[in-house]
Amino acid sequence: MAMGFNKMLRFLSLKHLLMFSMALNLSLLLSRLIAESESLRFKIQKDEKSQENDHYCLVWGTRDNTCDTSTSDQSAAQVSKNTSPAALAEDVEVEKVIQPDSVIINLDHGDPTMYEQFWKKTGEKATIVIPGWQSLSYFSDISNVCWFLEPEFAGEVRRLHKLVGNANTDDRHIVVGTGSTQLYMAALYALAPTDTSKQPISVVSAAPFYSSYPLMTDFLKSGLYKWGGDAYTFNREEPYIELITSPNNPDGFTRKPVVNGTGGILVHDLAYYWPQYTPITSQLDHELLLFTVSKSTGHAGTRIGWALVKDKDIAQKMTKFIELNTIGVSKDSQLRAAKILRAVSDSCTDSADSESFFEFGRRLMTQRWKQLRDAVRTSGLFSLPEFTSDFCNYYEKYSELHPAFAWLRCEGDIEDCEKFLRDHKIITRSGKHFGRDIKFVRVSMLDREKNFGLFVERLSNITSETKFP
Amino acid sequence: MAMGFNKMLRFLSLKHLLMFSMALNLSLLLSRLIAESESLRFKIQKDEKSQENDHYCLVWGTRDNTCDTSTSDQSAAQVSKNTSPAALAEDVEVEKVIQPDSVIINLDHGDPTMYEQFWKKTGEKATIVIPGWQSLSYFSDISNVCWFLEPEFAGEVRRLHKLVGNANTDDRHIVVGTGSTQLYMAALYALAPTDTSKQPISVVSAAPFYSSYPLMTDFLKSGLYKWGGDAYTFNREEPYIELITSPNNPDGFTRKPVVNGTGGILVHDLAYYWPQYTPITSQLDHELLLFTVSKSTGHAGTRIGWALVKDKDIAQKMTKFIELNTIGVSKDSQLRAAKILRAVSDSCTDSADSESFFEFGRRLMTQRWKQLRDAVRTSGLFSLPEFTSDFCNYYEKYSELHPAFAWLRCEGDIEDCEKFLRDHKIITRSGKHFGRDIKFVRVSMLDREKNFGLFVERLSNITSETKFP
Repeated sequence: MAMGFNKMLRFLSLKHLLMFSMALNLSLLLSRLIAESESLRFKIQKDEKSQENDHYCLVWGTRDNTCDTSTSDQSAAQVSKNTSPAALAEDVEVEKVIQPDSVIINLDHGDPTMYEQFWKKTGEKATIVIPGWQSLSYFSDISNVCWFLEPEFAGEVRRLHKLVGNANTDDRHIVVGTGSTQLYMAALYALAPTDTSKQPISVVSAAPFYSSYPLMTDFLKSGLYKWGGDAYTFNREEPYIELITSPNNPDGFTRKPVVNGTGGILVHDLAYYWPQYTPITSQLDHELLLFTVSKSTGHAGTRIGWALVKDKDIAQKMTKFIELNTIGVSKDSQLRAAKILRAVSDSCTDSADSESFFEFGRRLMTQRWKQLRDAVRTSGLFSLPEFTSDFCNYYEKYSELHPAFAWLRCEGDIEDCEKFLRDHKIITRSGKHFGRDIKFVRVSMLDREKNFGLFVERLSNITSETKFP
Repeated sequence: MAMGFNKMLRFLSLKHLLMFSMALNLSLLLSRLIAESESLRFKIQKDEKSQENDHYCLVWGTRDNTCDTSTSDQSAAQVSKNTSPAALAEDVEVEKVIQPDSVIINLDHGDPTMYEQFWKKTGEKATIVIPGWQSLSYFSDISNVCWFLEPEFAGEVRRLHKLVGNANTDDRHIVVGTGSTQLYMAALYALAPTDTSKQPISVVSAAPFYSSYPLMTDFLKSGLYKWGGDAYTFNREEPYIELITSPNNPDGFTRKPVVNGTGGILVHDLAYYWPQYTPITSQLDHELLLFTVSKSTGHAGTRIGWALVKDKDIAQKMTKFIELNTIGVSKDSQLRAAKILRAVSDSCTDSADSESFFEFGRRLMTQRWKQLRDAVRTSGLFSLPEFTSDFCNYYEKYSELHPAFAWLRCEGDIEDCEKFLRDHKIITRSGKHFGRDIKFVRVSMLDREKNFGLFVERLSNITSETKFP
């Protein structure tokens, strides 16, 4: 019927088989090469995009009021005319070549882009893949008080706190929020008295306090709570909510409650209580603790924060706030944050990794604070807070504070420090927004390496001889 | 020096070359097979997870007040004791085998899980991959009024509106929000008068109105705006904000403003103005339009909504609200929503796809409304709104309304429709939450196929003979 095996062998000589086999090899190799070049092309495109973003931040940084003021500056105004990203990037390139000193360095916001370096090095371990059919529902875990909390994210939060030893998560409810900003408002809503016939409860914090607290508290003119100002001067005999930010934003100091009253309800904002910024001196165990990935891992764009809450009723009310405010929190970002937190924990426990996430952060922060202190010394026109070291339970040794912000003071006859630095094309946030005077500014220490390098270089060049540009 | 070419050829006979070549073939084929089996294993794991989720929703659905009431029901209470996901899933399986009629069908929320089917079929075209180093910054596009808006997402929003023809995006500002819920609040903040010496502005909507409007408006007791109730009865001579939800939630009718006053500011909530629900009769062009992916594509878990805003100042104030409320909107979810919207548009323009997204949605909604009307007819205890068809510019033919919710009325001596259905283990939302009486309930039409099938089957079995279980 068909050609016999021997006949076929004769027909298909060794040469034929070899040719066929080599052709197959070639086709398999080619298909692999094509797949790899696609993946490489994708990577290059992404890298180019990241590089491009780098340019905008260098010039504009932000669009908020502080930055809008800066656009009255001539070179910024020149740039602001070009609105397309490509035009912007080109403009910066031209500007840097022609007048390198005219680049505006924006350190107004604590944009944590410093951490990009670490995450690029980490590679696929921190990459998330979400198929189109996943996470359609509003609900994540209906057995939980916080029904929109992804269990995977909650698990990684508990694991990381246990590993770092900065907060007790046993018998605590986790409430996830769209950044800790939303959780701050959820906490006020949950803690304010329900008896609305009374005056709104006062919300206070020791100055210098985080500049957004007064705005976030009062912008909706709520009848439940109102901003009460500096906690040091609060002495009314009535219930109050005291915010304790520790380490403090803007000045980096460790904080305790300061109001000497009864009926105080405490909220601990612990965004910066991580080993890259401060010694972990104890495992905190208060009623309500706020954390955020923005400052712990650098993923501000995910807008994910979490609260550890002792009381179930409070956790339920906070959940209700988020339900009415945004019907839950992005599942995509929760899943991504889970993956990121897992990568952080793994980097600490896996000895094969040469440098853990916290070691990376600590090394950069130590180096940057040294550079900044050197620049301040060279300039002679500024001063910085001095910190004492403390025993860090995480590193098991004494270590120093290296806050995420520098609380810089202009010395001598410079009255308005923010304006003074703005004249030198350095955008910072004035002390007046933090309940202090305009001799102070807050400077972000978390920007990209290039920006930070430009900043310390420029600062060291501002001396009593060159102070008027 | 080295072995000559001829010598080498003699050494490596044709047989050797063939063996080497075939070994190489084998290794390349094996590596490919391993890669494919990994990908298949991943897919199977994911599918199992989705199947598991299906089980919870069938029983519990939600945890909010309406659902908490339902857990007083015996069989729900039995399930609620088991809090782990695995235990829950098993419980349901057991329950279904032993007492199939005792399964609680929760259609209280408009959880759009119906669309999972389409997205599973779509596959990788809707999958997003986000590397760990991407989107760290708070900022997305600093040249835009809405500085946290991802340009990719904005582009896809404009493309889809153009394709569907439901809204004009020319010269419009896009403001992205954590769901349209956040944009609703942002709109109130932006539209309320800045002169705070005056009374808060009244916010009204024609009854039956979306049940969350009164709660979202009043829960913070804002001094800027307050809930003013049913727009039909509002007749005060003062400025007001009127919400026009069209098609309306809960009853599906097309809406126009109803207040006959001056000084009215209009907000159009167009969550359901898409071709699967309603004929697209005109390209809307109002001052402020709200949309959301939850109801357009089914991705409620992403929490992404958008506003189309004519006035730049209003867009700026809405952006400010979101800045103070959550410092922007999840970038991960914006990027995912961009990919999803692109897949929707592509499914409409690419003729190779057998069924576009809107055709899929339309087919299912048509089928479900037929099933529901049949069940209502068989039962004889309920009634539904009747709709007239209209010319749809998108389909270029007359088409009918198939709303995302059924506004069901209990007829005869059944006074409390929500309670009546709850006794039959069907969870719905009472008409009283929508500014109407308790003869009405709202029922979600967007649940998974299995759930919806159980619902219509059970409803058709509730007759005047069986109405007391």
